[in-house]
Amino acid sequence: MTKISKAACIGGGVIGGGWIARFLLAGIDVDVFDPHPEAGRIVGEVIANAEKAYAMLTGAPLPPQGRLRFCATLQEAVADADWIQESVPERLDLKRGVLTEIDAAARPDALIGSSTSGLLPTDLQRDMRHPERLFVAHPYNPVYLLPLVEIVGGAKTSAATIQSAMERLPPIGMKGVHIAKEIEAFVGDRLLEALWREALWLIHDDICTVETLDDVIRYSFGLRWAQMGLFQTYRIAGGEAGMRHFLAQFGPCLAWPWTKLTDVVDLDDALIEKIGRQSDEQAAGLSIRELERIRDENLVGILQALKGGDGGKGWGAGKLLKDFEQSLWADGGATASLDPSKPLRLVETKVSPAWVDYNGHMTEHRYLQVFGDTSDALLRLIGVDLAYVEAGQSYYTVESHIRHLGEAKLGQAIHSTCQVLAADEKRLHLFHTLQDTATGAVIATAEQMLLHVDSKAGKSVPAPAAVLDKIKAIVVAHSDLALPEGAGRSVGQRR
Amino acid sequence: MTKISKAACIGGGVIGGGWIARFLLAGIDVDVFDPHPEAGRIVGEVIANAEKAYAMLTGAPLPPQGRLRFCATLQEAVADADWIQESVPERLDLKRGVLTEIDAAARPDALIGSSTSGLLPTDLQRDMRHPERLFVAHPYNPVYLLPLVEIVGGAKTSAATIQSAMERLPPIGMKGVHIAKEIEAFVGDRLLEALWREALWLIHDDICTVETLDDVIRYSFGLRWAQMGLFQTYRIAGGEAGMRHFLAQFGPCLAWPWTKLTDVVDLDDALIEKIGRQSDEQAAGLSIRELERIRDENLVGILQALKGGDGGKGWGAGKLLKDFEQSLWADGGATASLDPSKPLRLVETKVSPAWVDYNGHMTEHRYLQVFGDTSDALLRLIGVDLAYVEAGQSYYTVESHIRHLGEAKLGQAIHSTCQVLAADEKRLHLFHTLQDTATGAVIATAEQMLLHVDSKAGKSVPAPAAVLDKIKAIVVAHSDLALPEGAGRSVGQRR
Repeated sequence: MTKISKAACIGGGVIGGGWIARFLLAGIDVDVFDPHPEAGRIVGEVIANAEKAYAMLTGAPLPPQGRLRFCATLQEAVADADWIQESVPERLDLKRGVLTEIDAAARPDALIGSSTSGLLPTDLQRDMRHPERLFVAHPYNPVYLLPLVEIVGGAKTSAATIQSAMERLPPIGMKGVHIAKEIEAFVGDRLLEALWREALWLIHDDICTVETLDDVIRYSFGLRWAQMGLFQTYRIAGGEAGMRHFLAQFGPCLAWPWTKLTDVVDLDDALIEKIGRQSDEQAAGLSIRELERIRDENLVGILQALKGGDGGKGWGAGKLLKDFEQSLWADGGATASLDPSKPLRLVETKVSPAWVDYNGHMTEHRYLQVFGDTSDALLRLIGVDLAYVEAGQSYYTVESHIRHLGEAKLGQAIHSTCQVLAADEKRLHLFHTLQDTATGAVIATAEQMLLHVDSKAGKSVPAPAAVLDKIKAIVVAHSDLALPEGAGRSVGQRR
Repeated sequence: MTKISKAACIGGGVIGGGWIARFLLAGIDVDVFDPHPEAGRIVGEVIANAEKAYAMLTGAPLPPQGRLRFCATLQEAVADADWIQESVPERLDLKRGVLTEIDAAARPDALIGSSTSGLLPTDLQRDMRHPERLFVAHPYNPVYLLPLVEIVGGAKTSAATIQSAMERLPPIGMKGVHIAKEIEAFVGDRLLEALWREALWLIHDDICTVETLDDVIRYSFGLRWAQMGLFQTYRIAGGEAGMRHFLAQFGPCLAWPWTKLTDVVDLDDALIEKIGRQSDEQAAGLSIRELERIRDENLVGILQALKGGDGGKGWGAGKLLKDFEQSLWADGGATASLDPSKPLRLVETKVSPAWVDYNGHMTEHRYLQVFGDTSDALLRLIGVDLAYVEAGQSYYTVESHIRHLGEAKLGQAIHSTCQVLAADEKRLHLFHTLQDTATGAVIATAEQMLLHVDSKAGKSVPAPAAVLDKIKAIVVAHSDLALPEGAGRSVGQRR
């Protein structure tokens, strides 16, 4: 994967801020130029939301966060960036001016993406000296969680630019979709605009309210579209007869006089007030901040659910997340600085919304999930990574003894350490401790026995020397540590 | 909640079959009339899919499945039903004829719903003698998983009918949305139609392919819509300035000459072939059955994720699922027939797609989830239910010892039993065994110690007499059982 080494963001509103958060959390330094007096605050809030979301999204080791710098001039911000993202307000003259300035100050090999949600790249690149490196990179809000970037080239954009841009998105957890021809609003906003027009008529004509309209979407096709979109869903609807049959059946409806799309609704004060009032009622007192929190928690949950899709292989945005996590594990930055003479601090996370009961407490089995992640991190450290497992051998947990000594709550920062108690050719005896990161208080412990197995044969086999050497080095380093209180105990045994 | 006591389904295609599965799995008897020679096979396949999905969707005790009967005549099918659902092909004359026949043969107090996705209820009820009880109940495919039902009355439909229909949907896990005025295609299909028209133009004009169009949806707004729909999402986009500000900003775009919606695309053979070919490529060899399986697994995962939304309180379709499960627990049918002298068989489930790793094996922590569910089921049995917990006391798990003796795979039917080893005023000592349901082979065991606590004070307190009496009765009944092999052991202890 080709990685961006340094990013510049021109414009730090909600979209610009979302890009900044994406880059920083992927470990990329970002220089920002935005003359708006509130830019620092707005960007800071978006980054805080993104940090919270990522902590819940993945247990994979995020790289050390990139360095954020606000610059006094556009020229200073773009000087040594290899990806420059423009996110200024949606006016052609303004964007054209900014892009021409970027063009003059940027490195000749820098990629220049515009966040425009509707303007044509051919129009944007008109006055540039190096227009071949300008493309539209249109993201969706919240940029730090939604993976899509529509990549659109203009008349003068080079094929190499499009290819470079597409390659640089997976390492920051994003999905580039190349739109074949430029049209105003590209693909996503075209689709949204069509539905939006019809929706406004439905409210205008009192067929439904904003709440019942939203309910119609989120209790039905919204659930379908999160995973498969429109055509694949209809392919299934066509049944064994398939897509062509479905189209032949559905086609005639297109000519029915259903829709009001041929008219443009007049979004006058009365309609704005009506929608505003209904929207207030729908929100039922939840603030924008609370709605953002709920939205992000739900997105995290949906992405994690899709990660388990297609029988555990991952599907759609969940497959993308899985790939992103694998690249994070491969980079394995988090374990580089471990002190081998202490219990190894292997997992840092926050209590995810999917992990809590209705009281906001972490549920029982999620403790074992974090302990399982801790064992997995140790295994990667001794060379038992995904490639090793795919080659046919692995360590399986055969026993766990968990003690609950405290509680963890939604959003709480927690970490887990591992002490290796013993190891032989086949067995690995571990003791994990889960602590509150702020206070260090012990929340739970787990003693585990793992067995080295040949997965295909389904029986235990000795681990290879390369693995045993690494584990034994840790056993030696840990041999001076005291046996943890709680090790070797059975359930209910008195202290 | 008001429950349907007996349902009749006229028409057993994909939609009719989905209704049948919904009713049966909610414990309602269904009489079906469909003269199609393949009706039995089609309905059977839908029910099989639904059973698989429900087993993964919820650990709550489903009621004994309703009885399914195919009838020789429409009259026989509707005779004693209190909800009759018509799902015959979408032709006004045909539907009107069928509804008039239903009207003549049904009980006078029966509710009659039509699955039509576009016809007006006023037109449908024209020839009925009791038109006041006819309404549109328009569901979405797959009916057994997607909760939405658009409820639409015609000119002669009574308000009481609409109210009765709305009340009867939550007990079968569905969400009725009452559409205020009847228009062709109601709300959902209006919105779909608008987006669909635009989508067909985008393919026709080679702006994108069906795959890139689907990707645009499922990597961006599809993920948003699964939880919040359109207006609530835009409310957030408006930021602190709110919905009115968003509309004022967005309004002008409506008049831009973006869209091609004013023209109707000609769905000729060339376009059908183009879409068909692109759809084949997108499916990448996955059959309709495989796509259905993936869709259902993803829907289950998304619904479960939303169940944890809003800090564990549940959000949207996940909140609905949570409420549905609570009603199932309250009915608690599954524990009625337990033999107290044996380990109590408390949990029956299948390995859910969200529970497996990339090899299709159940992940470590999901074992503890099933064991936790087993403890919860025991607690409900002794009176420690949700109301008890909400009143301020509960049992907390303080220790667990899990042994893995086998493996469980995606979709595998498993069950869990509980032997109560001991109990005193505060402590509850349990031993759970997880078995393969087909062979009885033991897959894992868990020994657990639970402590009775005052949740608010955060300390252990004696359980009340009513709870202790029930638990002691089980302890006595279990006192003749042998101590399970594996109880009282510590991690790594030799046998």
